[in-house]
Amino acid sequence: MLKRNIPEKTIQRLLLYYRYLNFLGQQGTKNISSKSLADLMEIRDSQVRKDLSYFGRLGKRGSGYDVMALRDKIADILGIAGESKVCIVGMGSLGSALAAYKGFGALGFKIVSVFDNSKQKVGRKIRGHICHDIDKLNKIVPRDDIDIAILTVPAEAANETAIKLEQSGIKAILNFTPVKLSLSKKVKISNVDLAMELKTLSFFIR
Amino acid sequence: MLKRNIPEKTIQRLLLYYRYLNFLGQQGTKNISSKSLADLMEIRDSQVRKDLSYFGRLGKRGSGYDVMALRDKIADILGIAGESKVCIVGMGSLGSALAAYKGFGALGFKIVSVFDNSKQKVGRKIRGHICHDIDKLNKIVPRDDIDIAILTVPAEAANETAIKLEQSGIKAILNFTPVKLSLSKKVKISNVDLAMELKTLSFFIR
Repeated sequence: MLKRNIPEKTIQRLLLYYRYLNFLGQQGTKNISSKSLADLMEIRDSQVRKDLSYFGRLGKRGSGYDVMALRDKIADILGIAGESKVCIVGMGSLGSALAAYKGFGALGFKIVSVFDNSKQKVGRKIRGHICHDIDKLNKIVPRDDIDIAILTVPAEAANETAIKLEQSGIKAILNFTPVKLSLSKKVKISNVDLAMELKTLSFFIR
Repeated sequence: MLKRNIPEKTIQRLLLYYRYLNFLGQQGTKNISSKSLADLMEIRDSQVRKDLSYFGRLGKRGSGYDVMALRDKIADILGIAGESKVCIVGMGSLGSALAAYKGFGALGFKIVSVFDNSKQKVGRKIRGHICHDIDKLNKIVPRDDIDIAILTVPAEAANETAIKLEQSGIKAILNFTPVKLSLSKKVKISNVDLAMELKTLSFFIR
């Protein structure tokens, strides 16, 4: 388990190691040196060795790290091994696409239910999932043991829906709306604003 | 125009001001005080006043800032006013959804073409756009004056496609693949890894 005194920056890097190792493993790479890992992440290899030394001996001199073993060890350390259950709230074009997106499964996420408030959608099957009414969040989130919601409703419905999610007992929200959600600190929120990502790029290339 | 000596952190905040002002304006808010803007962004209001003071007088004592005028002024300063042309490369479920996603238009992005290499897709209309062959990037990117590509191909095709994008003269890539793209420094890359966003959330709620 994670020692509480590991600096936040190290944790961020551990998550990145996890990401790269997972990708390398899926591509069939068996072993990697701290140097190659450092090059991939554009950091110094002394930094890699230092970060990984927090957790005892993970590599062998000469042959480097076993990619999948190191990935799993980091997942264990971070407490992110195993499967998490996810719901998607808002089945417009983005929500529907994310419901079909295969990239989540590779990292252990399972979309277990989807929600909307449109009468045309509720009760129908969308991308393999029965669409539930948003007013059923309260019932279904605890029943299906859902930890994380992906929020893809229109901006004007974002806050009221987030409040319903909080009341349902959700632990985290991946927020695709441009709205800053007003919730208690108990719900962890991460914002993905795709249009702003483009705007930031357009600043850097202007 | 932007003075080159503005610190990067200020630029990041200016992009955030832009984001919030754009959202407030679309919701119908006319004026906002530095205090309210600061609360929204969870920073000190003295910071807001300091940031905006780089650019001369933008607010009035008492009535606060004119939301849309301030937004446009910041866009001018950052050089991000006006429309940018975007293409989407990889018309799987995520690419197709992004092609239909309405959130880009509000910030001045126009999807002008979409690409794939599948014979089933090339030449067909997908979400209102004729799908072109990826091998035509070289011709269409300069012809249509496209600055930014959204990359949504499968991981194993990411690097070769990115190289074709660079050769086509693209200036920036919003990379949705989990692959670290190996390109020259001339192409600005921003990575959006949705599964990793979830993984990071799952760490913080564990």
